[in-house]
Amino acid sequence: MYRQPTITRGEILKATGLNPASLSHCLQNLIAAGVVLRVGEIESRTGRPPDLLRLNPDAAYFVVVDLEASPIRFAVTNLLGDIRYRWEEGDPADAMDVALIAKGVEMVCGPMSRRELDAILAISICRPGIADAEGRVTSVNMGWRQFPFEKKVAAAFDRPVFVENGGRAYVLAEYWLGRARGIDHCVYVEVGKGVGGAIISHGTFFQGRKQAEFGHITIEPDAPDLCKCGKRGCLEAIASSGSIVRQYLEMVRGSQRLPGGINASEVIDRAQRDDPQALAVINRAMRALGLGLSYLMAIFDPELFVLGGYFVGAEDFLLPRLQAELAKYVREWNGPYELAVSRLGLDIGLKGAAALAFHRTLADETLLRTLCQKRVWKSETRKKAG
Amino acid sequence: MYRQPTITRGEILKATGLNPASLSHCLQNLIAAGVVLRVGEIESRTGRPPDLLRLNPDAAYFVVVDLEASPIRFAVTNLLGDIRYRWEEGDPADAMDVALIAKGVEMVCGPMSRRELDAILAISICRPGIADAEGRVTSVNMGWRQFPFEKKVAAAFDRPVFVENGGRAYVLAEYWLGRARGIDHCVYVEVGKGVGGAIISHGTFFQGRKQAEFGHITIEPDAPDLCKCGKRGCLEAIASSGSIVRQYLEMVRGSQRLPGGINASEVIDRAQRDDPQALAVINRAMRALGLGLSYLMAIFDPELFVLGGYFVGAEDFLLPRLQAELAKYVREWNGPYELAVSRLGLDIGLKGAAALAFHRTLADETLLRTLCQKRVWKSETRKKAG
Repeated sequence: MYRQPTITRGEILKATGLNPASLSHCLQNLIAAGVVLRVGEIESRTGRPPDLLRLNPDAAYFVVVDLEASPIRFAVTNLLGDIRYRWEEGDPADAMDVALIAKGVEMVCGPMSRRELDAILAISICRPGIADAEGRVTSVNMGWRQFPFEKKVAAAFDRPVFVENGGRAYVLAEYWLGRARGIDHCVYVEVGKGVGGAIISHGTFFQGRKQAEFGHITIEPDAPDLCKCGKRGCLEAIASSGSIVRQYLEMVRGSQRLPGGINASEVIDRAQRDDPQALAVINRAMRALGLGLSYLMAIFDPELFVLGGYFVGAEDFLLPRLQAELAKYVREWNGPYELAVSRLGLDIGLKGAAALAFHRTLADETLLRTLCQKRVWKSETRKKAG
Repeated sequence: MYRQPTITRGEILKATGLNPASLSHCLQNLIAAGVVLRVGEIESRTGRPPDLLRLNPDAAYFVVVDLEASPIRFAVTNLLGDIRYRWEEGDPADAMDVALIAKGVEMVCGPMSRRELDAILAISICRPGIADAEGRVTSVNMGWRQFPFEKKVAAAFDRPVFVENGGRAYVLAEYWLGRARGIDHCVYVEVGKGVGGAIISHGTFFQGRKQAEFGHITIEPDAPDLCKCGKRGCLEAIASSGSIVRQYLEMVRGSQRLPGGINASEVIDRAQRDDPQALAVINRAMRALGLGLSYLMAIFDPELFVLGGYFVGAEDFLLPRLQAELAKYVREWNGPYELAVSRLGLDIGLKGAAALAFHRTLADETLLRTLCQKRVWKSETRKKAG
């Protein structure tokens, strides 16, 4: 029901294989609870005209947090990821702690009515770093080393808390709301402060013992480029935004005066204006990315790569270059594939957290019951008031 | 029941969550059919002593074929992959065709009794090459280009036919009978005529739109080494047995006389005796393999890599070298992992085909019914004879 704007009973029966009696019972409850709305009838030549049904996206809300963003972004979304309230919070001076998240959540919920606050189903957080089996997170950017993030954050709120790594949240957002809708095998790659991403295959994350670390694939084993991980020649050490700036500064140092605080976008702009050093740096980054994507091609053969980070806004210039590099290493037996740039913009982390919350809610019986009960209670109050 | 030699009803109940009455009913049928054997009782202080049960491995047979082997290997195995009969068939002069397979199957079944022939459940084939969605296989070694192999072979026999690619069959064999027993995340890599392999994760194959092509990961994009796929610098173009021989011959040509028909084992032997050119070639191959495995490490973080092909028999010399290369590129956050050499020997393809047949049979209601009915019929005949 969340995949198309409206649906009929017949379409639901066909898609789910439920028996008609159970479905009618379910729908009656969902409609009574206000989670499903009857939005009209469609014409029918025979018998009773079928109802057009729609999920009520404002039946409940999620509080979503994007710790990958700088400043940190907070939002309240409805069931379908539409953003209703926003808040931003500057990066902390020291390591990020849970109190700062709690403060942001309080701020973003500030303007909400009592009724809306009651309809908050869960809190969903997209974070950087790598979690171990116990949910302890290590992240250079957050200043965490095996920090028991999931436990701490679960203790700080009176609603269920979902936590997911940025790459996985982003690919969920693309799969639910973005370029990867309807695609079975998709890789999302974020090329920004770091290089990361995740793979989705038939709607589920695709990973081994732990999540893939695209950024730390060794692309040029003999390269001098030192990575934050301590090794040399990582994809991230060549293609991240910081690495692009570093390489450009190394190249031009002495040869010309530079404005302080140059960033990756500025290097990309200069490359577009045929600055030879900037072009050399960008070409090297695209070659490294093309090689990295070709490994994923050899191993997964995805239908779609979605690129985020500095590709957003520089699509026309960067995408054909990356495409040409990747094409060098793709074999004739690989299926047709596409490269695309994310269109979810700066909200991708928030949308990803909302996607996570929605999918976890669908899989959680207790939460689904809460969702329905809340609305029953509300419709009763409304009746009393009326 | 195929994971341990003997089992009790209590252990089955615990492992399956079946209710005791259904289990008793099932077991009664399986015992009557001769598929499960009662092999004794264990001591018990209270109540009735529990029966010790065992799968009857000879309740049925599989005909298995390894088209990857040269000469082609045929065998008849029991349910647990023990080889009962063998046959070998030389490589065909032209493209491999189904008639040659049918001939081999006839030969390997030649010495079987009528009773044994009736107990053949299925034919299971491990093949080289890549299949498309319609089961059409392309394999340079077999001389096939989109050859409708699965359809043809299914039409040639009066039993169900299972077909699987070599890499996947090998990893199944390792998971069922070899080094990967009890391991959740395992990669098998065959380094021989080609370089290939497969990934198994919690007992299921791990792949995207199509199977991984380890051999055609571009390891050295600027290398001159031309691969059969038409690209340069593929893992296979540097590390396959043929590539090792080619590189060695290129290096020594002119500098010394060589016996005709040198093979990869001979180059490995020479490297062990400190022949500098042979050592250079082997070191380059181990570096390429180490890099290739490091990509899989970054993406899957497997617990175990099992190496086959020319590693078998040269483990002491090659494995520490590969280990040292891989260690250069493994990050501190990767879990503990192990490198091992396959111990299934030349029968790995046959064992893999048997593993495939066994697992497909478990998942196939019709075949399971056949398995039981056959034995019922047989026990009846035996009763009549007795």
